[in-house]
Amino acid sequence: MTLRGEVSTAGRDTATAAVRRTRGAISDLGPIAFVLGIVMTVLALAMVPSILVDLVADRPDWEAFLFSAGATGFVGVTLLLMHRRAPSRPLSAREAFLMITLVWTVTAIVASVPLAFSEFGLSPADAFFESMSGLTTTGSTVLVGLDLAPPGLLLWRALLQWLGGIGIIVMGIAILPMLSVGGMQLFRIERSDLSEKVLPRAGQVASAIGGVYLGLTLICAILYWSAGMTAFEAAAHAMTTIATGGYSTSDASIGGFGDPRIEWIAILFMILGGIPFGLYVQTLRGHPWALAADVQVRWFLGILFGGALLLTLWVLLDGRMEGAGALRHALFTTVSVVTGTGYASTDYGQWGPFAVALLFFLMCVGGCSGSTTGGIKVFRFTVLYAVARVQMQRLLQPSGVFRALYNERPISDAAAISVLAFIFVFALSFAVLATLLSFLGLDYLTAMSASLTALANVGPGLGEIVGPAGNFASLPDSAKWLLAFGMLLGRLELFTVLVLFTRAFWRA
Amino acid sequence: MTLRGEVSTAGRDTATAAVRRTRGAISDLGPIAFVLGIVMTVLALAMVPSILVDLVADRPDWEAFLFSAGATGFVGVTLLLMHRRAPSRPLSAREAFLMITLVWTVTAIVASVPLAFSEFGLSPADAFFESMSGLTTTGSTVLVGLDLAPPGLLLWRALLQWLGGIGIIVMGIAILPMLSVGGMQLFRIERSDLSEKVLPRAGQVASAIGGVYLGLTLICAILYWSAGMTAFEAAAHAMTTIATGGYSTSDASIGGFGDPRIEWIAILFMILGGIPFGLYVQTLRGHPWALAADVQVRWFLGILFGGALLLTLWVLLDGRMEGAGALRHALFTTVSVVTGTGYASTDYGQWGPFAVALLFFLMCVGGCSGSTTGGIKVFRFTVLYAVARVQMQRLLQPSGVFRALYNERPISDAAAISVLAFIFVFALSFAVLATLLSFLGLDYLTAMSASLTALANVGPGLGEIVGPAGNFASLPDSAKWLLAFGMLLGRLELFTVLVLFTRAFWRA
Repeated sequence: MTLRGEVSTAGRDTATAAVRRTRGAISDLGPIAFVLGIVMTVLALAMVPSILVDLVADRPDWEAFLFSAGATGFVGVTLLLMHRRAPSRPLSAREAFLMITLVWTVTAIVASVPLAFSEFGLSPADAFFESMSGLTTTGSTVLVGLDLAPPGLLLWRALLQWLGGIGIIVMGIAILPMLSVGGMQLFRIERSDLSEKVLPRAGQVASAIGGVYLGLTLICAILYWSAGMTAFEAAAHAMTTIATGGYSTSDASIGGFGDPRIEWIAILFMILGGIPFGLYVQTLRGHPWALAADVQVRWFLGILFGGALLLTLWVLLDGRMEGAGALRHALFTTVSVVTGTGYASTDYGQWGPFAVALLFFLMCVGGCSGSTTGGIKVFRFTVLYAVARVQMQRLLQPSGVFRALYNERPISDAAAISVLAFIFVFALSFAVLATLLSFLGLDYLTAMSASLTALANVGPGLGEIVGPAGNFASLPDSAKWLLAFGMLLGRLELFTVLVLFTRAFWRA
Repeated sequence: MTLRGEVSTAGRDTATAAVRRTRGAISDLGPIAFVLGIVMTVLALAMVPSILVDLVADRPDWEAFLFSAGATGFVGVTLLLMHRRAPSRPLSAREAFLMITLVWTVTAIVASVPLAFSEFGLSPADAFFESMSGLTTTGSTVLVGLDLAPPGLLLWRALLQWLGGIGIIVMGIAILPMLSVGGMQLFRIERSDLSEKVLPRAGQVASAIGGVYLGLTLICAILYWSAGMTAFEAAAHAMTTIATGGYSTSDASIGGFGDPRIEWIAILFMILGGIPFGLYVQTLRGHPWALAADVQVRWFLGILFGGALLLTLWVLLDGRMEGAGALRHALFTTVSVVTGTGYASTDYGQWGPFAVALLFFLMCVGGCSGSTTGGIKVFRFTVLYAVARVQMQRLLQPSGVFRALYNERPISDAAAISVLAFIFVFALSFAVLATLLSFLGLDYLTAMSASLTALANVGPGLGEIVGPAGNFASLPDSAKWLLAFGMLLGRLELFTVLVLFTRAFWRA
């Protein structure tokens, strides 16, 4: 959404040119308002299906959605009309940061309106938390009683994650690399590969990726449906699986279906959602080895299967589960936590100390860049490993020449520092958020895991309260606002939001 | 110790030349064996006071110390005699890493012998844990009943921390900067400042620092004694205060004296132990502003007082304590945890969720480089802040030229990457160690805080078991070995030990 809006604002056909990285004051907010107008209009349209299903199901929530769609659409179209003559010019880096943060914040606010007016009658804190958790594909929820909830609301939650998922893929491929956020400049080269060699124009990249996203969602829905879900459940879960979001139509999550086939389908599509979507496009355009050759994909699968193996051994040794069930639940849980989906096939909070510690650390890993997943992301660990290895070699042979490589290309010192600074800021944000949550009275495990699950956009945390069997509803409102902010911070790769809090941003 | 030995081995009068950073195989182990000989002879001599005080107190442990001193001294002198004709040549980086790790490991093994043969009759795991915890100035203990323990053993524990403290200062000033470990190359310039402008020769630096260390210990002991400790208690606590070690002669630690004056003295000297000792030498040599001008010292004091302020407000708000007592206990605890001393003035484990979370994160901070403290160390946070700030500026003005500064000197990209890689390896080591501990059945808070307290050389952890009111004795032996390894890793700035586990180290 955001990308296409931005591209058309700039009046150019390449996203590269759209976000030209020049110094510049924010001269007028016209282009940003225009993008907001597009986003709000799309959101209003996205509420229509919820109106329809609630009308069919004869649930009163259709009014909440109709009102929200009307108000959102009115503001959106007004913004579009007001700024349709906005000057066609490239955005400065500063404007891009402001636009991205504003678009995501405004979307979360707008999307929370129908939640507040629904049967659940959520408080502002609850509605905003749920909406931000959906949009950022986090998947933490404050709702209890999903199994009896009106279908419009369930569909809205799923759609929100689905839109958030494609939003972050497009941002990760087209915008953040241009802005050099957290080492994402590493993907600038790859992007130009993609556009120059495989696809000539960036607009085509965006629509190709949209097509892949839609196609995978459809296949996933059909599989779910053929495995026994209703068509509605299949559609809702397909959207939140491919978006690695984790919202379910049942309080018991995927585990509620009690069907191993459904769990295997979920495992497959959560993994697919964690792989760079640009690689699918390359594969489809006749580069079948693109997926296998990518260092990030190899690391991602290695971490998933390594983690699942350790977890399987633990639950088997511990005697908590037996045979194939142990393997399936361990793999499901590892994939769900690493990709930040947050589905539960069973209450892994009961798996004892090793599982708690392992899953805690796996939470921050995340999937690949250019996918729907959150967290630190695998490419940063790949870069770190390469850098740490070169460090060791330099220690032993101070006069030797060593280059850290990523996907067989040398990593510049600037990119290495960006990646390392990202991890440090991630750790610092985690520490500050956890400390603030503990100040609100949350116990150690709850504060630590809630902070991490928000920043890494995972979903459930660990412990009695926010664990897979718990719910975020009982947290104080202040904790919900903090966590919602943490989700936004994590989703936008920290720096995109944090630069807005620097003095330099607002100077001249 | 190590430094002087190494310098004389190399037959040069500057430590700089001694550790010449050249590629080179480990041709013969003669120089390393010679250093080990010196270290073991010193250790044997250091056991003599324990023999004497146990003889005076009529405790049977004097035999354990006599036997250990005899055996250690015999091996030490033999090594010295065998290798006194070892070729006088500079050590390669590879040999320096091997030597440092060997010296600290062998010292911990040797120092554990009298503990194993003492009245306490510690098992190998317990004795090695206690000895490594002492030598690395960590201060975690497996002993219960210190108040009735023989004086020889109490003195030995204190001496071990005192020797470990001066060992790490000298290493941090003279050896690690030369080896570029974890960004320590930043201090290479400062060192040459020190030796060229203020003190002409490195040998003088070492003895000046030794003098300051001894002087501060004496002043601290006299103050403790005048505040009501016995001469023995004053000497033992002075040694473990200035070394930021944390071993006490009482199970109740400093809190056992119940005297605010003693607590204030401890606060002052723990802070003094966390400041770069090179700055004291500069101050004494007529540069009175050296201390105030150092960016690391300013950050260190800022973190201490900021943390103490937050903790004071929390305990006051929470109604756990009142007035001056709240301030004193909060300051004492913050200083003890940040400097990694590990004394307790009261059971801060009972201070509720915010205190637990805040102290957990403060644990990893550590003091200044070139001091006796452990942890990540303040200068790395200073560097990170500067780097993160420049990152933000570059995001906004991609074409601008910004330099990250440390103490008003530009930080090279290589130094920034070293610092960032250090933090990453620290976080990774913490995660691996915590996960392994949880695999042994330790609960979440115990595993997390025990892992961090070992790596950061703090002392007590958090929670019922390893917290300030608890004890490491009840942990399984395997956990003790792991934690002892973690202490060594943290104390030697990670890379010094980890390079030994790379293939590159053992190749050719």
